[in-house]
Amino acid sequence: MHEIIENYDLDRISIATLGSHSALQILHGAKLEGFTTVLIVERRRLWFYNQFRHLIDHTLVVDSWREVVSKNIMNRLRSMNSILIPHGSFVEYVGLDRAESMEIPMFGLRGLLRIEADQRRKMKFLADAGIKIPKEYSINNVVPPVIVKFPGAKGGKGYFIANSIEDVKKGIERAIKQGIIQNPDEALIQEYIVGVPAYYHFFYSPVLDRLELLGADIRYESNVDGLKRLPAEISKYINPSFVVVGNIPLVLRESLLPKIMDYGLKFVRKSKEDLPPGIIGPFCLESIIREDCEIIVFEFSGRIVAGTNIYVMGSPYSWLYWDEPMSTGRRIAREIRMAIDRGILDLILT
Amino acid sequence: MHEIIENYDLDRISIATLGSHSALQILHGAKLEGFTTVLIVERRRLWFYNQFRHLIDHTLVVDSWREVVSKNIMNRLRSMNSILIPHGSFVEYVGLDRAESMEIPMFGLRGLLRIEADQRRKMKFLADAGIKIPKEYSINNVVPPVIVKFPGAKGGKGYFIANSIEDVKKGIERAIKQGIIQNPDEALIQEYIVGVPAYYHFFYSPVLDRLELLGADIRYESNVDGLKRLPAEISKYINPSFVVVGNIPLVLRESLLPKIMDYGLKFVRKSKEDLPPGIIGPFCLESIIREDCEIIVFEFSGRIVAGTNIYVMGSPYSWLYWDEPMSTGRRIAREIRMAIDRGILDLILT
Amino acid sequence: MHEIIENYDLDRISIATLGSHSALQILHGAKLEGFTTVLIVERRRLWFYNQFRHLIDHTLVVDSWREVVSKNIMNRLRSMNSILIPHGSFVEYVGLDRAESMEIPMFGLRGLLRIEADQRRKMKFLADAGIKIPKEYSINNVVPPVIVKFPGAKGGKGYFIANSIEDVKKGIERAIKQGIIQNPDEALIQEYIVGVPAYYHFFYSPVLDRLELLGADIRYESNVDGLKRLPAEISKYINPSFVVVGNIPLVLRESLLPKIMDYGLKFVRKSKEDLPPGIIGPFCLESIIREDCEIIVFEFSGRIVAGTNIYVMGSPYSWLYWDEPMSTGRRIAREIRMAIDRGILDLILT
Repeated sequence: MHEIIENYDLDRISIATLGSHSALQILHGAKLEGFTTVLIVERRRLWFYNQFRHLIDHTLVVDSWREVVSKNIMNRLRSMNSILIPHGSFVEYVGLDRAESMEIPMFGLRGLLRIEADQRRKMKFLADAGIKIPKEYSINNVVPPVIVKFPGAKGGKGYFIANSIEDVKKGIERAIKQGIIQNPDEALIQEYIVGVPAYYHFFYSPVLDRLELLGADIRYESNVDGLKRLPAEISKYINPSFVVVGNIPLVLRESLLPKIMDYGLKFVRKSKEDLPPGIIGPFCLESIIREDCEIIVFEFSGRIVAGTNIYVMGSPYSWLYWDEPMSTGRRIAREIRMAIDRGILDLILT
Repeated sequence: MHEIIENYDLDRISIATLGSHSALQILHGAKLEGFTTVLIVERRRLWFYNQFRHLIDHTLVVDSWREVVSKNIMNRLRSMNSILIPHGSFVEYVGLDRAESMEIPMFGLRGLLRIEADQRRKMKFLADAGIKIPKEYSINNVVPPVIVKFPGAKGGKGYFIANSIEDVKKGIERAIKQGIIQNPDEALIQEYIVGVPAYYHFFYSPVLDRLELLGADIRYESNVDGLKRLPAEISKYINPSFVVVGNIPLVLRESLLPKIMDYGLKFVRKSKEDLPPGIIGPFCLESIIREDCEIIVFEFSGRIVAGTNIYVMGSPYSWLYWDEPMSTGRRIAREIRMAIDRGILDLILT
Repeated sequence: MHEIIENYDLDRISIATLGSHSALQILHGAKLEGFTTVLIVERRRLWFYNQFRHLIDHTLVVDSWREVVSKNIMNRLRSMNSILIPHGSFVEYVGLDRAESMEIPMFGLRGLLRIEADQRRKMKFLADAGIKIPKEYSINNVVPPVIVKFPGAKGGKGYFIANSIEDVKKGIERAIKQGIIQNPDEALIQEYIVGVPAYYHFFYSPVLDRLELLGADIRYESNVDGLKRLPAEISKYINPSFVVVGNIPLVLRESLLPKIMDYGLKFVRKSKEDLPPGIIGPFCLESIIREDCEIIVFEFSGRIVAGTNIYVMGSPYSWLYWDEPMSTGRRIAREIRMAIDRGILDLILT
């Protein structure tokens, strides 16, 4: 990777991403920081991104996401001195193996991809960092209520909440029948934390050696966030589902921020220990806040999350640091700009 | 109308609206674009709008909304070279016939008012445009759950959700007794779409020939959004109601935006076909997003909606286009400004 | 107090607050208005506020909040020409008696602290101002549903909703057993208003003699806002709790704003009558909006509330007045700046 970067023309760096998830925010931020932008986009979505052509200097059209790693695309990206910004849909689209071995500089910690892809390693990473996580139960040792997750499933598909061992077993059998999992061991049975969900958007800057809290959000999920508007005698016949379709802004009680920041710093520290050089740029901790104000983290994302799309003009937190409209997308571009200016670009690319 | 506009002094155009709904946003936007502003306001609310007198150059006080169309008000508006900005409460206050025949240039598609006033024509317009809508049932052909609406009723009054044919019939009888409707045929029985509500704020610019997505929101409704905070054993005795009292910001999952933009473009196209010159400026599609990410539109508004009041400083979407605080109210004024500068003002007025 | 202010160097005024609640917002706003900032902070939280050291010129570290009123801290604050900004956690941390007698100029109406600390005087203040409040019931005269509150309890602790006299009595007995109250008379039994919560952030400017509406929010409460995401057969076993952990942005239907503004003005008027010079700066009215659009206020706060933390970059309402990113924290600093410039600083300090 160092070799590729050494051959780059630092005056003509471009920022590239895939057309989905938080691409508009990333492109917008890159333009504000004066970069050339490149969008890799599926043919069927090209018309949509063309509505925002003022944000996009070059489009690389693919017929399927697998093409992203083709020699042709890689060559073109390198010829444009591109830095790739992976986002939350990146591994899903490209595939883990391909993502890991792409011969293009990425902004972010590539080594984290494999941990993220494995629900159990992920939880262990958090616990080892010193962050509180839900208890995990084996199927013979369930203390209800629990939430049962299927690590392979996309977007919360098939997740269910159960209040008894029988319901857990029934639900897992159903998931096997539906082909969501092959055998019961794949199911992750977690303590159901009673409280409210909250997601924290962090940005670790290697250039400034500073962890910034850039925002927080609540997810808006279909159909569960609609069911609560239905009379109980109707909603009881409908199974709740947890497909994220949007995000709602949130600020936290200030007395919770030290705990949140502490978790963020622990995450940074652990990533430096286990996966040097450690996390670079955006990551997200996904939590439940209990009524006793304890925060339990049930998931993380090692890159930009869709909740940051709320804050294209900056968040209540980013304004505390920057006093200009600083989205996470723009913050990424700013970090790259600062690294170029200081001659330390290779510090923030993997 | 062309005659009126021809007699206008284009250097002294003023922007006028009615004191309610999104008036503050419209006036604020007009001032930012350098226009003189005119507020038509009921006497009883004058004191309130006087709190914002820095946004208002002239007030025309009426004792009741019916006066809005009086010769006196019309003459004064024309003498101030006024363009009227109709908003979501406009037809409600002024009445459909009067609104259609007002002899003052309006920003927006006047011809759409009559379609909007008729729930069934409205749904047909959407369906014919190629936008997915809920199924409509006749009373003898109900597949529950359904939502029953009374087109004449204001703000969702009397709407109810039913899980059986008996409940539909009982509810309609109750509505007749309460005088909400006269006969059962007035009731609109729609498939109840299970999912989450989401409202999209569009702006079609004839000057730029561009459809902009300017924001999205969720409505905050009394009492339904409070009931869900009550224990079931108490809430079950209370009938949910759906009176909109506010709006909450929302961003959408980026992979939903192509579908949303497609619906917006279809709406523009259909309006151009059926009602040339077609939609001008703001409109809103009101939808449910199902757990399979399908979007079903159950309502539209052909003008500025109150949800845009969230984004006086711009929205996560408007910043993608404008990089300055661009509310829908300001966007209207900007469109008028651009049309004046290009000598094509009559293109955007009806 | 006048004496202290007379000895202050008006060219070197600093703004001081306690490290919690809305301190970051207050410090950020003070810096934007060119003030030196002082943070009084518990030793255990110093590391956290050091993450924001660009906002803080001086830190005064205490081992416990009681030290805030120590001679040492008071002397140091006065030597830095400090104006103290009390926030929602101020009395909770410092204690009512100490807060009232602190020998340091405060921005805000010190005389209101004692009324705020007494739930019954508080409700009487609102009612006497002409603001609608919930009915209060004696234990022998309950019309359910009711909400039962324990004035001494922090953050809604122990509050419960009851649908029968028996449940009220049982709940109060339980609270006595748990030591939340000593005798039944301490319990405040209020009519449970069915509707949706909404909180309004006001700012009364003595300098401009103007009441500004600076924002609105909804509280995000653990666990009640999570319970609604659980299937009824699970949530029914869990007692709802109402611990505020965050805030969500809200705009109001514009036709509700005259009522809200009227309440705000009534609050200002009453405070001037009862406690001259009357309210100074931020206050908050906390309400339920019923389905008939009537607004019932069940609580107020006489200083900056945490909900304003949403609007560090300004709110949809503050932009109507200021056209620059004007948080409540910055608005406080701006008021102090204007008062200094006009030589009327003593008008806004108590």
